[in-house]
Amino acid sequence: MKKIKIVVDAMGGDFAPLNDVSGAIIAAEEKKDEIDIILTGRVNLINDELKKHKVRPDNIFVVNAEEVVTMDDSPVESLKTKSDSSISVGLNLLKEKKADAFISAGNTGAVMTASILKLGRIQGVGRPTIGSLFPTDKGKTMVFDVGASVDCKPVHLLEFAVMGNIYMKNVYNIINPKIGLLSVGEEKSKGDALTLEAYELLENSGLNFIGNVEGRDVLRGKADVIVCDGFVGNVILKFAESVLDVMKNKFRSYAEKGFFKKIWVGMMYGTLKNVVLKDFDYQEYGGVPLLGVDGISIIGHGKSSPIAIKNMIYKAEEMIRKEVNSKIREELSSLAIKK
Amino acid sequence: MKKIKIVVDAMGGDFAPLNDVSGAIIAAEEKKDEIDIILTGRVNLINDELKKHKVRPDNIFVVNAEEVVTMDDSPVESLKTKSDSSISVGLNLLKEKKADAFISAGNTGAVMTASILKLGRIQGVGRPTIGSLFPTDKGKTMVFDVGASVDCKPVHLLEFAVMGNIYMKNVYNIINPKIGLLSVGEEKSKGDALTLEAYELLENSGLNFIGNVEGRDVLRGKADVIVCDGFVGNVILKFAESVLDVMKNKFRSYAEKGFFKKIWVGMMYGTLKNVVLKDFDYQEYGGVPLLGVDGISIIGHGKSSPIAIKNMIYKAEEMIRKEVNSKIREELSSLAIKK
Repeated sequence: MKKIKIVVDAMGGDFAPLNDVSGAIIAAEEKKDEIDIILTGRVNLINDELKKHKVRPDNIFVVNAEEVVTMDDSPVESLKTKSDSSISVGLNLLKEKKADAFISAGNTGAVMTASILKLGRIQGVGRPTIGSLFPTDKGKTMVFDVGASVDCKPVHLLEFAVMGNIYMKNVYNIINPKIGLLSVGEEKSKGDALTLEAYELLENSGLNFIGNVEGRDVLRGKADVIVCDGFVGNVILKFAESVLDVMKNKFRSYAEKGFFKKIWVGMMYGTLKNVVLKDFDYQEYGGVPLLGVDGISIIGHGKSSPIAIKNMIYKAEEMIRKEVNSKIREELSSLAIKK
Repeated sequence: MKKIKIVVDAMGGDFAPLNDVSGAIIAAEEKKDEIDIILTGRVNLINDELKKHKVRPDNIFVVNAEEVVTMDDSPVESLKTKSDSSISVGLNLLKEKKADAFISAGNTGAVMTASILKLGRIQGVGRPTIGSLFPTDKGKTMVFDVGASVDCKPVHLLEFAVMGNIYMKNVYNIINPKIGLLSVGEEKSKGDALTLEAYELLENSGLNFIGNVEGRDVLRGKADVIVCDGFVGNVILKFAESVLDVMKNKFRSYAEKGFFKKIWVGMMYGTLKNVVLKDFDYQEYGGVPLLGVDGISIIGHGKSSPIAIKNMIYKAEEMIRKEVNSKIREELSSLAIKK
């Protein structure tokens, strides 16, 4: 089996380089014959972190990058002004074919922008897309797009469906994923100008298109892939993330109302966490892929744990082994011929 | 004080005519000098329901309407084919100036479409809007639009802001409501074509515009009024409503796993309900107003309780007493002059 080289942005996320390096070490040890890991970032900080671990696996390498893109940096600006950042250096390695994939828990906008500009788009892709997993009763639903592309045209939603279909089939082993179009009613006649036209395209796409789904269907597992404009997807994703925080805050203020209430909340918390909160905790899911760029780039939550980082690395490996990008290229070009 | 005549659709909602009539009776008794109530629907069904109550208040009247629009009827079709429905008859009373307001817990689309077509729009309003309240830490945020108008132009979002501002000021007594524009980032430069232009209009509107808000800010009470295209608002509203159902289902399946789990969930449920679930229960809020139509039309949840019906009646009364529609007309015409 060919070894795969995965670049990990060691400066990415709120707990960098701690969680990035720890996650990288776990992955490097578990898969020492399958993957090599290249950490990018300030070499002294990375080495300090590596020294804290008993063993330094042979399949971990470090490439220095002096600058760090912070969570507050403007994506476009940071690309111009911080050309020696861990993100830029990492993506350059992909561009120069010195590595196969890049993962980062850093500034989402910056990683996305840099990936699109440095790696370019796969031929046939009008707009790249970021997908996000939502927990459902029946498993998981992935919503494309959650913020890479706003002001989409109908054909872009079709592209998201094609890419999402390939991703769910290959990375989550779902046979013939059900594709839904996010809209304001189930009937074909319901929607806005964008979705009404996209419906026609999806209906004739040969995909397993189940028609319109509504906001209430996202958490109900009605579809495996739900497509929408990145504006709408981003608003729902951020809304969903906030629900957990709001609930936690409510329990916190309730607990503060008195000693017994505090004990009572403490008693309930374990159950609450297992039954409900865990599923809504988007930090548990590791990273989301940026699909449509000519290379593998996975973006993680800023609060990614070492396990989340490890999962991102494995997801990158799987995308490469399953040749997700070649499949996207093929299907989109056969779609272009049909049109 | 001039008595106000409010039409209640007695055939509207999943529990019609029971809840509609019960709610109407409570309101009629509590405010016998302030309001008259006209129930529209099948007169024999309504009378049967009225007879179940000890007293029949003098300020309750019945107007017969033979047909019933069901929850599954197509809004536009039902308007054409069921001209003698409780909705049509009720709105005709407004049109003929025989009543001042209409409330219904029936088919939302049908009530909305019939209201717009029968009552017409207030001069200066390009698109009517439905607002929905979201619970927040600090109180309530109302999102406009949640489904009346999709494919909005920037000026429509400005209209929603003007109407929402007047509504929150007058009906919820909020001084100088904070207006937010729903977008994908806080910075002015973030958004899609619609919101980028709407930002400019809102900035120069003289309203208390606080800039962009994100999906995560909806439940955080950052703004009193949040404006967005009806497509986006509808998707979030339905997503939010589903969160409660999903959580309830999760607790239910957990309880089914064994006797002790069932008892434990039973013990927790009271707290859960008071601390979290209640706030997310959108049925508690009574109706949402359709703003921008030339008349008062309030639409309630299909599952509206008698108390929800009563609250809708009171909201209608308040909108009339505070002259919300005259204020909308004035502010939009002065905005038109400024343009």
